[in-house]
Amino acid sequence: MPLDDYRITSGKRFNLAGFDPGSKPFTQGDKQDDQARIAQLSGELDLEQDIFYAEHRRKILVVLQGMDTSGKDGTVRSVFRSFDPLGIRVVSFKAPTPEELARDYLWRVHLQVPRAGEIVLFNRSHYEDVLITRVHGWIDGDECERRYRQIRAFETLLTETGTTIVKCFLHISKDEQKARLEARLADPQKQWKFDPTDLAERKHWKAYMDAYESAIAATSTPECPWYIVPADSKTHRNLMVAEILSAVFRQLKPAYPPPQPDLAKVKIE
Amino acid sequence: MPLDDYRITSGKRFNLAGFDPGSKPFTQGDKQDDQARIAQLSGELDLEQDIFYAEHRRKILVVLQGMDTSGKDGTVRSVFRSFDPLGIRVVSFKAPTPEELARDYLWRVHLQVPRAGEIVLFNRSHYEDVLITRVHGWIDGDECERRYRQIRAFETLLTETGTTIVKCFLHISKDEQKARLEARLADPQKQWKFDPTDLAERKHWKAYMDAYESAIAATSTPECPWYIVPADSKTHRNLMVAEILSAVFRQLKPAYPPPQPDLAKVKIE
Repeated sequence: MPLDDYRITSGKRFNLAGFDPGSKPFTQGDKQDDQARIAQLSGELDLEQDIFYAEHRRKILVVLQGMDTSGKDGTVRSVFRSFDPLGIRVVSFKAPTPEELARDYLWRVHLQVPRAGEIVLFNRSHYEDVLITRVHGWIDGDECERRYRQIRAFETLLTETGTTIVKCFLHISKDEQKARLEARLADPQKQWKFDPTDLAERKHWKAYMDAYESAIAATSTPECPWYIVPADSKTHRNLMVAEILSAVFRQLKPAYPPPQPDLAKVKIE
Repeated sequence: MPLDDYRITSGKRFNLAGFDPGSKPFTQGDKQDDQARIAQLSGELDLEQDIFYAEHRRKILVVLQGMDTSGKDGTVRSVFRSFDPLGIRVVSFKAPTPEELARDYLWRVHLQVPRAGEIVLFNRSHYEDVLITRVHGWIDGDECERRYRQIRAFETLLTETGTTIVKCFLHISKDEQKARLEARLADPQKQWKFDPTDLAERKHWKAYMDAYESAIAATSTPECPWYIVPADSKTHRNLMVAEILSAVFRQLKPAYPPPQPDLAKVKIE
């Protein structure tokens, strides 16, 4: 099954450069075919989510990471738009506030983990604490290794207490980012998404790829894998994230709570 | 315009019994026609929400109140399902926790108000603090009047700082509630929604209607009106909430932030 090739469950032999951001491993043919498959998966996912919410027992945490313009917002919009808002919540992590900085870096993350029956999407995450911090030298190699270990322990806590964690790296090429930044600048309706600091981060592209490769290798386990999502094609990126979610639900097999026989006798006046 | 007839902007002469839960003031004909109109409105609302999110300036708070089975969850699911999860958030208020009870009753509500560009749906709200509390005599008439005043002041603060508050009372009949509770009991896939305490509250139907009438009369202003939504028909309830949202956006006229001429000169390397 091709999804196995994009699911990283161990740091051994993991090489980010081995993944082509322009590839389309799940394509059904052309763009229309892919959109049709997304529509089909969306219908199935909607139903699964409703049952997962009714089940009210387990939790799902989807972590979306990627360079600027890699499509984190777009994935939320396209793949999760038809989900019932009662059971889904998006948390966008920005630069930490003074209140947050006064605690450990996982404090604000722990506050936002999903509750029973809920699916939470992290738009950026605690991984920024081993990415931007590492690229800019705000933490050294020892501290970075310590954080990898802390993150593994934190994620183990979550998985052992009923949370399925789905970590997606939206993998775009530097050329594709250039095209998307230019599109933002050119379109008055997209200019609001443009942030000049994105250009500063872009200069560190190679360092970011190294930091991602290292972080993914250090935090991929069979229970808590990373998925490498080729993301130069927006349609295929959405398709692949929908396929990943579909596989997660196939494994979880959500079910309605069992009927309660004594309720059959209740009389309503 | 018929919406004016269902928008309560003053407590004077407000009489809840004058509204028939079975009426369908916005119907386009039959159920299929209404669903077609909902689909049309959904498309328009989606676009307006995207622009509202991009504008990142004002806020919308939708308060959903109503008796058990009146369709608060169903309204979220049907009317707001296609909204971009990035810009919408549902807050379901349950019985307060000890942490919450240790503060004033508006504390947990204030924590959850929408941020710039966000639409927040309150599934139940601070109005429970003048409804269930009043029906069961946990607060007396004087305290209830005091809370009406506090709520008016709190909502004035929100509206004066950029929040549009849309308060919807989903108005069902006692007979319709009976039918829906029976349907929950009979359907194994709906039994999980059944809560035996709902039957206890049902016994106080008349007291609840009085408490709603009083609360709505005391907290309806031109800036922060209540809408009475006849809710015996689920399809028409969804249609009417969509019409209300549509009218709100027509008034707010969301717009993309203005283009920034200096950005045109930016060169991406």
